Amino acid sequence: MTKAPSTGSGQALAGRVLKGDRRALSRVLSLVESGDAQGRAIMRRLYPKTGQAHVVGITGPTGSGKSTLVFALAKEFRRRGKTVGVVAIDPTSPYTQGALLGDRIRMQSLTSDPGVFIRSMATRGALGGLAATTNDVITVLDAAGKDVILVETVGAGQDEVEIVDTAHTTVVVSVPGAGDEIQTLKAGILEIADILAVNKADQPRADITAKQLHVFLTLDREDGWTIPIIKTVAVREESMDELADAIEKHREFLRSSGGLEAAARQRAQRQLLAAARRMVMGRILAQAEANGHLHELIDAVAKRQLDPHTAASRLIEASRG
Amino acid sequence: MTKAPSTGSGQALAGRVLKGDRRALSRVLSLVESGDAQGRAIMRRLYPKTGQAHVVGITGPTGSGKSTLVFALAKEFRRRGKTVGVVAIDPTSPYTQGALLGDRIRMQSLTSDPGVFIRSMATRGALGGLAATTNDVITVLDAAGKDVILVETVGAGQDEVEIVDTAHTTVVVSVPGAGDEIQTLKAGILEIADILAVNKADQPRADITAKQLHVFLTLDREDGWTIPIIKTVAVREESMDELADAIEKHREFLRSSGGLEAAARQRAQRQLLAAARRMVMGRILAQAEANGHLHELIDAVAKRQLDPHTAASRLIEASRG
Repeated sequence: MTKAPSTGSGQALAGRVLKGDRRALSRVLSLVESGDAQGRAIMRRLYPKTGQAHVVGITGPTGSGKSTLVFALAKEFRRRGKTVGVVAIDPTSPYTQGALLGDRIRMQSLTSDPGVFIRSMATRGALGGLAATTNDVITVLDAAGKDVILVETVGAGQDEVEIVDTAHTTVVVSVPGAGDEIQTLKAGILEIADILAVNKADQPRADITAKQLHVFLTLDREDGWTIPIIKTVAVREESMDELADAIEKHREFLRSSGGLEAAARQRAQRQLLAAARRMVMGRILAQAEANGHLHELIDAVAKRQLDPHTAASRLIEASRG
Repeated sequence: MTKAPSTGSGQALAGRVLKGDRRALSRVLSLVESGDAQGRAIMRRLYPKTGQAHVVGITGPTGSGKSTLVFALAKEFRRRGKTVGVVAIDPTSPYTQGALLGDRIRMQSLTSDPGVFIRSMATRGALGGLAATTNDVITVLDAAGKDVILVETVGAGQDEVEIVDTAHTTVVVSVPGAGDEIQTLKAGILEIADILAVNKADQPRADITAKQLHVFLTLDREDGWTIPIIKTVAVREESMDELADAIEKHREFLRSSGGLEAAARQRAQRQLLAAARRMVMGRILAQAEANGHLHELIDAVAKRQLDPHTAASRLIEASRG
């Protein structure tokens, strides 16, 4: 009568994750991502063991070479004896889908290293956008003892801005260009940057771009941190030492200024609310789908017989009855 | 004792929106975006009058010139006698923040036209990411009689993918480049494209890029639509007639193939679920904040005494009591 779990018992799996077992890690991440009950039980066991990893957000537009930069940076941290987790949540990331040959070769040199664990996530969620388990994935990698967790995002859109909000250190990657970039950085992305990387710095306009950034941006922040601008050539793994130094320096700054605690609290809030949202919406949808209300209400909204807010009230009411 | 609403009565405001009154439109959008109860009452009045507008998503990476393309396309639709609504949900859009001079001049020529209404939205949401009223904004512009509603997004991240899912026609903007673009398009963005625009087509590699797109992408879709590739130079307003033609042709295709109904149903589902999410999370948070539970639970998660899922269960329980 008992269903033998093909994934091994939750307790055993959690234990293996804490020891850094790669296969256990993969299984647990799949359980967590699918919203499985066993996954949640494992998360309960893992959670108290976390909080040691340094979470680094790497963000920038498509074409800025940030995936390549993540590879190169991971290698640099390995050279420094740190274990590394990589979480890619850019839907256009080469991790996620059909990588180019160069990326694939770079990736293989990492995936064969037991000190590195790479996980790619699609951002496209299930019905109603109830995905966003990225913070859970970070938690599992943290529990598995990864010293540094690099989270690659395109840095736009609600979910990704949230992730960046909860990273300890955020590196914004830009490329030498015609000035548009500075506008972009000024407008939206700079407010989240702790470190600026000007990648593809072997291109002709790299020096001009770096100078423009220095001129146009206020790099001295109110909290006492000065945003460094680092020119990198990720495909040739150039300036990765300088970038890793800046990341470690920022961690020290956070530790001494109380910023680590503030970040922990912010991340806790995000995770709590995301979990509550998934839980409560999951219940409502399961009930409404079971009794057919969901499809009736969608029809009524589509035919403009009901506005979405009134329909939502009825959906919530129906799930209580 | 009665509070005189400075915004005018809801009924009167709704009536003025239906007549296309710009000031009423601005007020109603502010009410709707702030989640105000009067805003919801107005939405109930407006909703049955909607469903006529053609919603066009314009998406592409930062630097692709999509804002400029939206301006130029709006002008083209005006030339064709259509009224136009513009919704910009790119946080780095020049509408949203400090526009460059060129953009500002282009924008002014539009904002002085009573047949055009522009609304910019930040994607950064309130506590817990409960924003996402973009569909409501589209509904209001639709009720105000806008024939075409152009929705500008960066096309990444959960919310924005959802918006694009609910647009009738999606234009993906790319730029001539070194081949990365095609990889990007293949990986994530192409699955949502009805029309491809290769912007900045006066750049040297434009023809090669367009040819590569033709070679590498499957442009004949299973539903019978063939994705056109259109080279544009948005800053000089070149090929906007061709682009507007393609958009109108796609609308005809949707009308004849039943796609408009499918899109209406999909949008209804999104709006319903988004409204339910906002409503139920709003209640939970308001209660938990009032009785202090929220901050206790966040503290417990931050200190790793509770995992986020367990804390979320307690949050939901507490809001019932």
